[in-house]
Amino acid sequence: MSKTTVSAPANIAFIKYWGARDLARALPMNPSISMTLKACVSRCTVEVTGADHDEVWLSEPDGGFTHPGADFVRRVVEQLDHLRAWSGRGEHFRVATRNTFPSSAGLASSASGFSALTLATVGALGKTATTPPAELSRLARRSGSGSAARSVLGGYVGWPAGTLDEAAEEEGSYAVQLAPASHWDLRDVIAVVETGAKTVSSRDGHRRAATSPYYERRLELLPGRLDVVRRALAAADLTLLGPTLEEEAIDLHLIAMSSHPPIFYWSPGTLEVLRTVRELRQEGLAAWATMDAGANVHVICDPAAEPAVAERLESLPAVGFVIRDGVGDGPVYETGHLF
Amino acid sequence: MSKTTVSAPANIAFIKYWGARDLARALPMNPSISMTLKACVSRCTVEVTGADHDEVWLSEPDGGFTHPGADFVRRVVEQLDHLRAWSGRGEHFRVATRNTFPSSAGLASSASGFSALTLATVGALGKTATTPPAELSRLARRSGSGSAARSVLGGYVGWPAGTLDEAAEEEGSYAVQLAPASHWDLRDVIAVVETGAKTVSSRDGHRRAATSPYYERRLELLPGRLDVVRRALAAADLTLLGPTLEEEAIDLHLIAMSSHPPIFYWSPGTLEVLRTVRELRQEGLAAWATMDAGANVHVICDPAAEPAVAERLESLPAVGFVIRDGVGDGPVYETGHLF
Repeated sequence: MSKTTVSAPANIAFIKYWGARDLARALPMNPSISMTLKACVSRCTVEVTGADHDEVWLSEPDGGFTHPGADFVRRVVEQLDHLRAWSGRGEHFRVATRNTFPSSAGLASSASGFSALTLATVGALGKTATTPPAELSRLARRSGSGSAARSVLGGYVGWPAGTLDEAAEEEGSYAVQLAPASHWDLRDVIAVVETGAKTVSSRDGHRRAATSPYYERRLELLPGRLDVVRRALAAADLTLLGPTLEEEAIDLHLIAMSSHPPIFYWSPGTLEVLRTVRELRQEGLAAWATMDAGANVHVICDPAAEPAVAERLESLPAVGFVIRDGVGDGPVYETGHLF
Repeated sequence: MSKTTVSAPANIAFIKYWGARDLARALPMNPSISMTLKACVSRCTVEVTGADHDEVWLSEPDGGFTHPGADFVRRVVEQLDHLRAWSGRGEHFRVATRNTFPSSAGLASSASGFSALTLATVGALGKTATTPPAELSRLARRSGSGSAARSVLGGYVGWPAGTLDEAAEEEGSYAVQLAPASHWDLRDVIAVVETGAKTVSSRDGHRRAATSPYYERRLELLPGRLDVVRRALAAADLTLLGPTLEEEAIDLHLIAMSSHPPIFYWSPGTLEVLRTVRELRQEGLAAWATMDAGANVHVICDPAAEPAVAERLESLPAVGFVIRDGVGDGPVYETGHLF
């Protein structure tokens, strides 16, 4: 199978990856836990060609193709280089990719994008059947988008599987499924308050994390939070999950804002949404907010609360639009291709 | 002199008082440094009466008087009790007070209000001439509004004078002038984004400060920041002061947001102003932001930058109005009275 198309979803972290021991290899300073999404996906087609270089295209909704920026192409080709080295093969590829959601706005487009690229390339090399999930996760991680390691799996995902120490180990640093999507039907109502690219990349954020005077203390706090999230997942208990979810999201931004130089990912709309989520809780709805390294807010709730949460968030002037998403089963190998 | 009127200014802290060893006596966990303002003042008239109870009035701009809320009256009467105990006198007072700026919106109205009340009451008791400044500062502090200890002095003010340890001592806990207003003509352009009372009082914020997992680390960071601010004051060097000023302001809010339960003082407009101040700097203007426990933003700049800073902030949709203030000489004993 020399041409493979994979749709891979974004994920939203309950415990955040923030700061790396080795940024190039995406070895994280701390374990993270995420929920794989369903609606927010990147679709990627990869084909082995006889050419002496890689071709990288963005696929447009109208069916046309455009050239991506040089930085994007460089990151894709670096990952293709990793996969050539891993497979011992020298061929080049034609790649086309498309997101169903705004890129680079803190909606983990690099997680879904590099997950889809990795799986599609492994497929194009004919190695899908012989590569175990842990290896696929490691390969996706090596893209440099660490959270791509989580997007190759569905449901609820931990990365790495085990302890803080394992996070430092190349061998140990892959994601595992903690529970399938069917275990707990959680919804994620995403309030999009900014669609432009963020001014500071996640990569720069990871790089600066340790310059925050509070970063070491954050790492001390994480084992307790990880324990709460694992217990909440096991019991499917949103009331247990929610406060830690929200505390952890704020924490990432506290570290960013106290880094040197400081990073401000929040926009005015972010605060408006956070305030509204607190109001929703006061009105009795079980809904908690989380954010990645960006301005948009993911509101985690159960299916019963989802319509009311979505309606309220859509009514806010600062919210451009709302994406109603939820936990998903992970990447899908498609029969149709982008080219 | 049985009737005394004092106008006392608000102040804006460069290093914040946040967290108390003894909240009732306003013994702070850490030293603070502030600039006394000029335009934002509370005016208070106190008269000794023959009555068996205190009368407390709010003076309105139209010359009329209204009854303040019960909580306000209670705090005023408690301070009058302190001053009766201190003076060994038993008389009761008639008190009227008026602010030139929105109350309870993070513009330090309790600092100016309790400073004015304290100085006017000491005056009404005929003890102004025999009470040294340190004692006036201690008395103002005992109102429970710790920053009132700084508002009895003009220019640039440190509280307490010395070390962290002294902050714990009742005797040592008064403010001193570090430099007169004439030493450095700094301006404070206040962007008012909210005029309503904040939902969590400073007092509750002080109470919760130590519940933040980052509070101890904050205290460790403060000696370094205090040193920078003292050196910047001595050299009248805004480029040295600015980054520490802004870092310290963010820090107060990081502690508030990571307290249990968390406190969010910022409003969407706060972030819009902070973003604009960063843009102003990119355009070459020396302007740095600071906030107290509230949503409004104080933009510290030199006189040359003030008009451009004020114009830009006024143009922001989220900014209701701008107050152009600056360093002032401290409280003034007025010849006219409120009643």
